[in-house]
Amino acid sequence: MISGNKVIPSMGFGLWKISQDDCATAVYNAIKEGYRHLDSASDYGNEKQVGEGIKLAIEDGLCSREDLWVTSKLWNSFHAKEHVELALQKSLDDLQLDYLDLYLIHFPIASKFIPIETRYPPEWIADPDGPNPRLELAPVPLMETWQAMEAVYEKGLAKQIGVCNYNSGLLHDLMSYAKIKPSMLQIESHPYLTQEKLIRLAKQYNMAVTAFSPLGALSYLELDMAGAAESVIEQKIVKKAALRTGKTAAQVVLRWGVQRGTAIISKTTQPERLIENIDIFDFELNEEEMTAISALNINRRFNDPGDFCEAAFNTFNPIYD
Amino acid sequence: MISGNKVIPSMGFGLWKISQDDCATAVYNAIKEGYRHLDSASDYGNEKQVGEGIKLAIEDGLCSREDLWVTSKLWNSFHAKEHVELALQKSLDDLQLDYLDLYLIHFPIASKFIPIETRYPPEWIADPDGPNPRLELAPVPLMETWQAMEAVYEKGLAKQIGVCNYNSGLLHDLMSYAKIKPSMLQIESHPYLTQEKLIRLAKQYNMAVTAFSPLGALSYLELDMAGAAESVIEQKIVKKAALRTGKTAAQVVLRWGVQRGTAIISKTTQPERLIENIDIFDFELNEEEMTAISALNINRRFNDPGDFCEAAFNTFNPIYD
Repeated sequence: MISGNKVIPSMGFGLWKISQDDCATAVYNAIKEGYRHLDSASDYGNEKQVGEGIKLAIEDGLCSREDLWVTSKLWNSFHAKEHVELALQKSLDDLQLDYLDLYLIHFPIASKFIPIETRYPPEWIADPDGPNPRLELAPVPLMETWQAMEAVYEKGLAKQIGVCNYNSGLLHDLMSYAKIKPSMLQIESHPYLTQEKLIRLAKQYNMAVTAFSPLGALSYLELDMAGAAESVIEQKIVKKAALRTGKTAAQVVLRWGVQRGTAIISKTTQPERLIENIDIFDFELNEEEMTAISALNINRRFNDPGDFCEAAFNTFNPIYD
Repeated sequence: MISGNKVIPSMGFGLWKISQDDCATAVYNAIKEGYRHLDSASDYGNEKQVGEGIKLAIEDGLCSREDLWVTSKLWNSFHAKEHVELALQKSLDDLQLDYLDLYLIHFPIASKFIPIETRYPPEWIADPDGPNPRLELAPVPLMETWQAMEAVYEKGLAKQIGVCNYNSGLLHDLMSYAKIKPSMLQIESHPYLTQEKLIRLAKQYNMAVTAFSPLGALSYLELDMAGAAESVIEQKIVKKAALRTGKTAAQVVLRWGVQRGTAIISKTTQPERLIENIDIFDFELNEEEMTAISALNINRRFNDPGDFCEAAFNTFNPIYD
């Protein structure tokens, strides 16, 4: 059986890297502009503020709880069976919600447990202020974590359960032991990393797919993680499609993501961008444009925590190689 | 604890695609020319002939059983805990051996069980002569398979146990539940697919690494799986190093594989190639040559059963994406 049957709104509002100060307002404004899908995570460090924004929006009559789709994610340090519900409950408390629409395993890697009282969110490293900050793995099998995800699903705390950042090998294995099948795979995907095979495999397994970083490097420029890649919105074919459709280049790229059958997560705190990003449902790219944008693929991944952890803490733990 | 402590001879003789007719002689000749590491697998369909070659070589005093390193591999259809020892015992019977030096999970994917009496080796598909030949997956978690691998190790039937074709995500998960840690990772690797991160991760986990297809596309040309890739032995830097060292281009590429710290599997039935391939231990590539050959990397994988199964049986099951 597959968890849940509600369909995710294809445009998600992403909460990663939105500061606590801006977050409640950003969520409120997003809901006001028509966003109904919020992509949150314990690790983003702003779930209390997300909850405030949701509460205010509901109080002001912008939407009901049922109108919203709220996703959150289980952090690496809570993978053990005795910690999954604890972590989910913390997210629910912070978000001021009774249930999540979707709860996802954030990364297919388990790190050392850190009590909520000690540090929250715990982030990647076990001992940030000590003499040896590092990513410390914990021997928790993904099967154990999935079984605990099934338990919170059975309790109704999450209406759907799924995974992020799994590759095809991990998906096959997950499917071999899942009693409640994951309904969602969330992965990085954009015209430079189209992930066609992985998306096709997920759909073959009856999973929906959500693409994060749908504009490619744009999210990472500010983090200096983008390297020298040319922005996808500067690509000729994208500009040409924008000209033909009377849309912006960013809208073309976001539309490409939705039109190929993935939900997408976009993030901005700029009011005009907020409106621009969701205004992609009144036009279509033609087949030629879809194909040409897909052909920009260079298998370029911008979000690789293995690289990040190595650069920051000299801890080598690739997960995509 | 890590399985075994004997060190694998870095030059392995590969049995894949050696016909039953040629196989006993090929194995005998390889041992005669100094090969001590034989890379066999149930799936190669020639283990009886490998066994005959080994027996003859030992009878003729070319080597003792203890001098040899014999690897075999568990096929996908034998992943269930009740089938692993059965499959290993079949390989031992065919090879006329009491133990393997190394037993590997061949692929991180479980397919439907086919009894040995029905078809052996069972190959990729569940119903080859029926109306719908296809790869049929079986819901056997890799954890279950690994625990059965540990059991045959404990019985002494395999002195070491390990895996093939795992990626970093699967390795992290395996390490979280393995009581006997895998001692070996066997993967495709050559100058067009250097797999530096995965190899580094394996070594961090105290695993040795064996590279198959060390010459890149050469093994696949005959199978029409190589596409249009230029042969690595035609690369300028390889030819230049061959000129400097007085070796052949193939010897340079094989030497690169060994010198970077992997065991390698090479296969040939041509007597002069047999001698050429193992004659790589009397010279060294310099650092510049090593670096330049590594820089040929284009992440080009030639052996992808997902592609193969799709082309042959319209069954889509990628494992590397």
